[in-house]
Order: sequence, then structure tokens, then C-alpha cells
Amino acid sequence: MPDAPPALPEAASWLADGEFDALRGRIDLRLREYLLAQRADYLRRPVLGALYDDLVEFVLRPGKRLRPMLFLLAERVFAPEEQSTHREKRDLLAPAASLELLHAFILIHDDIIDRSESRRGLPTLHRAIEGRLSSFTDRHRAGNNLALVLGDVLFALAQKSLLESSLPPAVIVRLGSLLLGCMVETGFGEAADIIYGTRDVAKVQTADIEQMYLLKTTRYTIECPLAMAAVLHGVDAAGLDALARVARPAGLAFQIQNDLLEFARFEVSDAEVPADILEGKKTLLMRTAFDLLNETDRGLLQLCFTACGPSEGTVSKARELIAKSGAVRQLGRRMDELFAQADAEIFRSGFSQTVQERLMGLIRLVRGATGGVEKARTHG
Amino acid sequence: MPDAPPALPEAASWLADGEFDALRGRIDLRLREYLLAQRADYLRRPVLGALYDDLVEFVLRPGKRLRPMLFLLAERVFAPEEQSTHREKRDLLAPAASLELLHAFILIHDDIIDRSESRRGLPTLHRAIEGRLSSFTDRHRAGNNLALVLGDVLFALAQKSLLESSLPPAVIVRLGSLLLGCMVETGFGEAADIIYGTRDVAKVQTADIEQMYLLKTTRYTIECPLAMAAVLHGVDAAGLDALARVARPAGLAFQIQNDLLEFARFEVSDAEVPADILEGKKTLLMRTAFDLLNETDRGLLQLCFTACGPSEGTVSKARELIAKSGAVRQLGRRMDELFAQADAEIFRSGFSQTVQERLMGLIRLVRGATGGVEKARTHG
Repeated sequence: MPDAPPALPEAASWLADGEFDALRGRIDLRLREYLLAQRADYLRRPVLGALYDDLVEFVLRPGKRLRPMLFLLAERVFAPEEQSTHREKRDLLAPAASLELLHAFILIHDDIIDRSESRRGLPTLHRAIEGRLSSFTDRHRAGNNLALVLGDVLFALAQKSLLESSLPPAVIVRLGSLLLGCMVETGFGEAADIIYGTRDVAKVQTADIEQMYLLKTTRYTIECPLAMAAVLHGVDAAGLDALARVARPAGLAFQIQNDLLEFARFEVSDAEVPADILEGKKTLLMRTAFDLLNETDRGLLQLCFTACGPSEGTVSKARELIAKSGAVRQLGRRMDELFAQADAEIFRSGFSQTVQERLMGLIRLVRGATGGVEKARTHG
Repeated sequence: MPDAPPALPEAASWLADGEFDALRGRIDLRLREYLLAQRADYLRRPVLGALYDDLVEFVLRPGKRLRPMLFLLAERVFAPEEQSTHREKRDLLAPAASLELLHAFILIHDDIIDRSESRRGLPTLHRAIEGRLSSFTDRHRAGNNLALVLGDVLFALAQKSLLESSLPPAVIVRLGSLLLGCMVETGFGEAADIIYGTRDVAKVQTADIEQMYLLKTTRYTIECPLAMAAVLHGVDAAGLDALARVARPAGLAFQIQNDLLEFARFEVSDAEVPADILEGKKTLLMRTAFDLLNETDRGLLQLCFTACGPSEGTVSKARELIAKSGAVRQLGRRMDELFAQADAEIFRSGFSQTVQERLMGLIRLVRGATGGVEKARTHG
């Protein structure tokens, strides 16, 4: 069963009571309505219709909606005085939905690439489709191929949501261009992740991994939602640069938080092997463990990922080595420093004090987003 | 070696001498300049830079540029009197480049899905990347995954080219929305193609295949370029409907032409097995052959695609059965009828006589686009 998404309205305590959850509810409603409206006539054919339903089910699974929430909240940060009726007219839910649809598209393709089995507590899209295909076919391959194509469809639908909003065309073009720039970077971040996955951990430096995290996650997850909100309210190039300097440490901390949480789950349950470990991905956790271990243990860690595919033995040995290295504690400290650095960048940003305080609230939202990092920390 | 792209300036005899080839030259130049300008700083890293170079090389391989040519020529059809200086200012090359980049993106993902080996006379993108990867890794899988991600990057770059053009924002939004609607349909057409590929030919009806061709190819190849040009010059909804009625038979004829050409190449050379036959795709040629064969031969044709993977024997038997069925001759006639039907729809369209004549020229461009159909016909 999927976890209930964490609330965290305290990250935006300046909102009216209940407004935080109401915003998330509006995002989900818009996603549902939009995807329903896009159900074209040709999807009445049974097979294609079922695929579209699979896609809609995947997108609508309960989630944190972190990216659209960051956008909608940041929009209020930059224009706190704006009347709510005026805001409704601006159709902010179109770009918000766009951000969530793009995220779902990225997850679909990532899950194919990483051969992941589950997402948000249910089968990944390629596995869900595979499960419904006839047993006479090469189900595995057909499931992968169909999910690949549905990911492409979702990328198109995500852009379409923005282009068909009632925002002024010049604003739409600006926001779309920002988003697409981030998507290009996300693609190259994913490419770096794939390439590093094929390499020995000794040959992938910490700086490479941090750059990969920045491209793959930070840009579209943190910086883009903030920048889109800022652009809507005429924040200038210097302001956008300041936001990028805030997003960079916050995004890296967010990724470390994810690494730590996945590892903490794995320490609690043998069944929760992170895809990163199965796939030999070069995470900061893996690289930090390698740095901290002695020569013998380093060699063992390398061997865990050079055997032909992961086994119960190599996976459990890798867990033991990472745990004993002290990498979890060290990265926990680094995460704290990075979140503090994001706050310091906000302080240096030149935005008004009200904007600064509220942006710091948004960083707390990013920090709380995985909903279990404190639990992860106790394993350090 | 890639074939030199066919010229066919006679399809637009109303252009000044040399203007047809000049237009195609400008498309290629714009593609090259745009991709060079998008080479971000982080691509200076050797590995990511090499991947970007692979992508650029793939896009710039010599090709017909059918979609951008249709758009640029149709734009002149709908505004024949416009001054060339005014036209230059409109930055028509941005949407033209967008169409070609989207086409290249579709080819990259299709080639992964169909496990194709070559494209435009050179290795497909996933094979080219695979060839450069270290032999210590699972090169095949890494090549596929990297090409998948580069396809996504190209989809983003294609949209970005349009959004960053100097056309008025309202026009950009309208064109982008049109394009994305077609991309959604292309995705579902591809999904139908994958699903039919897993089925017995007896269970995939001619109407299903024609619908699949419409979604997968006609919309983005023929209708979208014409509609984008029409929208630029204020053609109304009735005019766009008329263009869709022209595009539908022309696009189906174009697909049949491709099927026939691939088969003709295969009849000449054992080495040119069409991916469609290797993958058991349900083309109109395959289905028509099935309809025309007697019961024994039908059973044999079905058996050719139910064995575990294609072999020299099944592939050559399929060729023999298709050849003896008379399907090539029948589909050749159908193709002629469909192209004639497209002309008839132009005649009924209500456009001025000049526009009608020039649109008929564009249908001749579509007809000549594969550059070898007459050769294919002789094998009927």
C-alpha cells in the first residue's frame, strides 16, 4: 500500500489554516480533470484505452506533489498581496500540473532504465503493463516498450498542459522554455548516472556524482519550480541567480536525504533493496563509504558490483560494508550543512525579509519531503 | 553510405530556380546552428560531450527533411504574395527545425523498440553508442538506455526550438499545441504497432492497421506541417478540416509506399530484411498478403511469425509467400487510388485554384519522398 503523503503545512505557516492541504487537493483534481479531458476518441478502442488508463492510474497515485507545491507556494511568496480571485484567473494550476506530469514521465523512463519493480508502493508502469499482457508474447519486452512510449506521451501531455493554459502567451513561452531547459539537463544527468553505473566506484569522483545529482534532480525539482514562480512576478536575472544558488545546496541535500532514507529502509528490511544497489549505481553514499573504508574493505565493496549481476550475497555484503564505513553519519552531517547553506544563500539573496523567511519555509518543505529522514539518521 | 536525398523541385515548380534546394540547405544549416548553440557548458565533460556529439551526428545525417519542407512550402502556398524579407523576419526555420528534431526523436525511440540496426545508412543511435562503450559493461543495455535518454533530450530540444523562436508568443503557443497533440497521437500509434506485433496476423484487421498508420505517421508527417503553415496565415477551422481530409489518404499512401519500398529492397537483397518482418509487425502488406493467400499458405505465413524469433528460414519463407500473394500489386493500386483521393480532396477543399494546384504539388512531394517507389512497383 502506498504511504499517505506527509502534510508539512508548517513549512508555509503564513498560509491560512487548511490552505496547504487544499492546494495539494487542487493539484490532484487538476491532474485528474486534465487527463480525463485528454482522453481522445481513438482511445475508445479497448487496447489503447486500457494503456491510457494505466498511465492515468500511475500519475494519480498518492504522492507529495513536491514540485507543483513548491511552485504554487513560491508564487505566493513572491506576490503575497495578490487577491485570491486574481490568482484563480491566472490559471496557475496549468504549470503546476505540467511539473507533476513531467516528474511522472521521468519516473517512468527511469524505472525502465533501472529495471525497478515498484513505485509509490505499486508496480512500476512497465511491470503493471507487462502483468496485463498475454502470456504468449515476450511480455517483458513489450511491457518495457509500451511504457517507454507512454512516457513519451506523458512528456507531450505535460507540455500541452502548460501551452493550453489561459496565462498570457508570452508568459507561457517563458515558463515553457525554462522547463524544457531543465528537462535537457535532467536527461544528461540521467545519462551520467547510466555511465557511472557501468564504472568502478574508484573511478567516479564525489564531484562527478554531485554534478550528476545537480543535473538529474536539482534543476527540475527545486530550481525550476522556484524560478517559474519568480518569473511570473517579474523577478530579475539577479534574483533568478540567487534562487539558483539556494536551489543548488538544497537539491544536493534532498538527494542525500533520499540516499539515506533508501538505505535506512534496506537496513530494516531485507526485501527493500534499493534499485541503486541492485544496479551498482554510484550514489554519494556508495562513494563516501568507499572513501572511508580501509583497503581490504574497499576491494570487497568493489567486488560486490563487479560480479555478473547482484546476488543475495553481494547485496548483503554491500549493506554491511556501507553500514560499517560510517558514511551514513558523515553524509547526515553534510546534509545538515547543505540545508544550512541554502538558508544562508537565502539570507544573502537580497529578497525582502518576508520573502526570505517564507523561502526558508520552502526549504523545510524540501527537507521534510521524504518524510522519514530522521528515522534514517538514527541508523548512522 | 547514405543515399543522396532526392531533389524533387518539380513538386514546387512555382518556386524560383534553385529555391527548393536552397530551402533544404537552410533547414540543415539551422539544425546545425541550433544544436551547436545548445551545447551547454556541462557538456564539456568528455563523456557527456561525446554523447551530445552522437546525437548531433544522428540528427544531421543527410535526409529528405520531408516534414520541414512540407511546412516551409505550404507556408508559401498559403501566402504566395508575402515579401521574402518579411518572411525572413518571421523566423519560420524555428518551427521547421522543430519538426525535423521531433522526427529524429521518434526515429531514435522507434529504433530501440524495433531493435533496428541501421538508420539512414549508418548504425542506429543505440548501436552507435553501444559500439563506443567499454567492453566490460553490459554494452547492449547501456547503449539502449543512453539512446532512450538522448531521445528524451531531443524531444525537449525540439520543443525548445519552437518556444525560443522570434514568432509572436500567441503563434508559438498555437503551433506548439498543434505539434504536441500530434506527438500524443504518434505515441499511441506506436503503442498500437507494438501491441499488434505481439498478435497473430489473423486477429489484426486492415482497419486497425490503417488507424495505426494514421496515428503513428500521418498526423505528424503530413497533417501537422500543413496545418502549422495554414494556422500561420489565418486559415479557419473549416480549412484545417479540409487539410486533414487531404492528409489522411496522402499519409496512408505514404505508409504503403514505405512498406512496398522496403519489401522491394528485400526482394533484391537478402541482406535488406525489413525490421517489420524481423519483428513480426502487422503491416498492410503482411495483412493484405494474408487475405489473398489460400488457407495452406495463410497457415504457413502465420507460422513464420510464431516461431521463437525470426530465422533465415522463416524470413525467406515469409518473403516468398508475400511475393506470391499478389499483395504488392494490389497495394500499389490502392496507393495510386489514395494519392488520387488526396488530390480529389484538394479539389473539394474550397481553397483558391492557385492554392489547390500548389497543394497538389506538395502531394507529389510526399509521393516522391521515398525516391524509389516506381522501382518497388515493378516487383508487383
